[in-house]
Amino acid sequence: MDLIESLREGCPVLLDTGGHLRDSAPFCPAGVPAVVALPTSVDEVRHVMRTAHRLGVPVVPQGARTGLAGAANAVDGCVVLSLTGMDRILEIDPANRLVRCEPGVVTATLASAVSQHGLCYPPDPVSRDTCTIGGNIATGAGGICCVKYGVTADYVLGLSVVLSDGRLMRTGRRAVKGVAGLDLTHLFVGSEGTLGVIVEATLALRPARGPASGLLAAFASTRDAGAAVAAVIAAGHTPSALELIDRTTMQAIRDLGHPVEPAATLIAESDGPDQAADVAAMAALCRAAGAVRVEVRQDALGLRRLIAAAMLAIMAGMGGRPTAFIEDVAVPRSHLATLIDQLEIIALDHGLWIGATGHAGDGNLHPIVLFDQDDPDAVRRAEAAYDAIMAAGLRLGGTITGEHGVGLLKRAWLRKELDPESLRLQREIKRLCDPAGLLNPGKVFDD
Amino acid sequence: MDLIESLREGCPVLLDTGGHLRDSAPFCPAGVPAVVALPTSVDEVRHVMRTAHRLGVPVVPQGARTGLAGAANAVDGCVVLSLTGMDRILEIDPANRLVRCEPGVVTATLASAVSQHGLCYPPDPVSRDTCTIGGNIATGAGGICCVKYGVTADYVLGLSVVLSDGRLMRTGRRAVKGVAGLDLTHLFVGSEGTLGVIVEATLALRPARGPASGLLAAFASTRDAGAAVAAVIAAGHTPSALELIDRTTMQAIRDLGHPVEPAATLIAESDGPDQAADVAAMAALCRAAGAVRVEVRQDALGLRRLIAAAMLAIMAGMGGRPTAFIEDVAVPRSHLATLIDQLEIIALDHGLWIGATGHAGDGNLHPIVLFDQDDPDAVRRAEAAYDAIMAAGLRLGGTITGEHGVGLLKRAWLRKELDPESLRLQREIKRLCDPAGLLNPGKVFDD
Repeated sequence: MDLIESLREGCPVLLDTGGHLRDSAPFCPAGVPAVVALPTSVDEVRHVMRTAHRLGVPVVPQGARTGLAGAANAVDGCVVLSLTGMDRILEIDPANRLVRCEPGVVTATLASAVSQHGLCYPPDPVSRDTCTIGGNIATGAGGICCVKYGVTADYVLGLSVVLSDGRLMRTGRRAVKGVAGLDLTHLFVGSEGTLGVIVEATLALRPARGPASGLLAAFASTRDAGAAVAAVIAAGHTPSALELIDRTTMQAIRDLGHPVEPAATLIAESDGPDQAADVAAMAALCRAAGAVRVEVRQDALGLRRLIAAAMLAIMAGMGGRPTAFIEDVAVPRSHLATLIDQLEIIALDHGLWIGATGHAGDGNLHPIVLFDQDDPDAVRRAEAAYDAIMAAGLRLGGTITGEHGVGLLKRAWLRKELDPESLRLQREIKRLCDPAGLLNPGKVFDD
Repeated sequence: MDLIESLREGCPVLLDTGGHLRDSAPFCPAGVPAVVALPTSVDEVRHVMRTAHRLGVPVVPQGARTGLAGAANAVDGCVVLSLTGMDRILEIDPANRLVRCEPGVVTATLASAVSQHGLCYPPDPVSRDTCTIGGNIATGAGGICCVKYGVTADYVLGLSVVLSDGRLMRTGRRAVKGVAGLDLTHLFVGSEGTLGVIVEATLALRPARGPASGLLAAFASTRDAGAAVAAVIAAGHTPSALELIDRTTMQAIRDLGHPVEPAATLIAESDGPDQAADVAAMAALCRAAGAVRVEVRQDALGLRRLIAAAMLAIMAGMGGRPTAFIEDVAVPRSHLATLIDQLEIIALDHGLWIGATGHAGDGNLHPIVLFDQDDPDAVRRAEAAYDAIMAAGLRLGGTITGEHGVGLLKRAWLRKELDPESLRLQREIKRLCDPAGLLNPGKVFDD
């Protein structure tokens, strides 16, 4: 019996694989899958994994394909295992502030459902309206409010995982605290589908966030804005957002019809009970760092819309250029201004426009490289700029990825970031979990 | 050349092993070590591990021996690797809110050093004045303020680890965010010395905590106090301490000279800017849950002293009884009152006094079993009560250890808590890291 017939015995399949080739990463090859499996239950996932294991066929788990590193790209002849059909919220437990759900639940849907119970699931990647919890966990997704509330990893209490041969494993707990045995839960968070297939998650929740206020500060240079970030952190503030939008991105937002000033802009938000004083103090620090204009906003909604508009502008190609390559690099926060300088130099060196927008409060920038995809020379320069950005991040004691992951895009750079013994142990753990090398092959570890 | 001579070539040793046999756990056997190694540098630790690996001698890493599960107990013929001599704080980086230190730094010493820079290292196990950071990381230690600020694991950004054969591995990062590769850092946090020897840690810090206030509420029964905890959590409060002290422990505190009432007592602390309103609201919830007296305290110092006095009273044997066996179990918070009921039943069933003191806000109790160590029947009953407590915790969806670890004490119960596939993968990872089985043998996994 062939692959597709065997799969069909225990799981719905889709033969038209065209919509499941790749995620949203640039520069990453995608193969042609043999078939897409669309399970709606743990048993169906187990059937897929058992079948693929028996037949020696690679499996590529896929969520909403919003990833930016190619981790969900198909490989030739693989089964794409799309988890989007497993989208049930299984349990909301307000007394214990937790939610249990399937991997295909859209992040915003989950956040909205728990908000009905006066609770909050904070992680807020920009793609939250379309991305899935399973993908968030697999990539270790971050977001805007992470500067105060932490990243996806901080909310994962336990997982159910289908292993490469179809066995089902449960990790973690429902209690707030627990140290029984090794922490396998966080080994699987951020493992980008290379160790197993996440089929259920137990996530911690927080009490609902209160109303927020904030400020918008315009600077003469992105570097000055970076210095303001350092000042805000050094003064002991814990803003619920601290986002940088560079001048050109602000111009693109303006082109989209928003009445904003085309200047390097810092957005700070505070949602604590002392937010009035907090925002006033952050405003003073922005002025001291050279802000040319600081506007305090009682209601943070407009600020959040502006952050969303920045992403929209970037996705829309920044005023007509065909491709915006969104990078992801994080440095110790004291080096943020230096990283911004480096980005300007890299842009000049490669004859490209590179923006510096991102989660500045975490030291996590998303440099945006604009280039013409149809111009081979521009593509070559964009790739060289990407390498230069990675190198700058590492030189400053940072990481090649703050929240997007390694996938296909950053495999070569992973080897440069990681200690060789750490990489060796990671590869050994990969082999332990997937001895046949069938689970998302070629991703992360370059095996 | 024999073991001791070989060790001496690259590391100071101590032949009198009497002070290094065991940690502070009851019911746990300890072997007789061959020698104690007292390294003061990473190179000396590597020499010890290489030597032990070459000669096939087991190694037991040891910190301040305040552990309560036997994870640091010697095994016959082993090298005890005492890390207390590696106690340097290597770097405090206020701009990036992090500290880098050796494993032997005493937790309170670290906390005090970073406080000079307006920063805070929150994890506060009761033994913080004597326990070490390395031990805290190895056991995944908790504490009192964890209910608001999280546990040790939440503060570990990166580690240097000497592996079983002497290789040095670095994990993690200095940036706040990062998802490059598998999270080996948190695989080693809580691994209780079974995977490698932690020789350096990079820890995240927070801005200094502000002044706190709180309340002390007396209840007619421990169960009522448990219900108050559930009400405080359900109402969305995030107290910086929410501790339960049972009636008998309060009596013991009173016997030590503190002017307290012998009633089941809940202590709540708030350190946010809205603490006055927060404490008032929590006080109302305590009254609604049946508190017979609620006393609001503007200054939390007295409350913290009372929590410390409770631990002191327990350690001092609760009014003359020879042995207080401090247990550690955590349940989903909604089951706290039921756990308290169960503890009372277990006490009656086994003819023992069992207190219920602990980090109630986290659902993490430390039942205290008092028994006469010299009475074999009492020892037998205490052991049976321990089993009954573990079983109750698991029945309520909890864990056999909230923050003390598995060590020797809970190996049998670990098998009952963990999913078999999870335990299997944990044992495989143990074998991967320590193929010869020389690193803290017999701990956690019962291999």
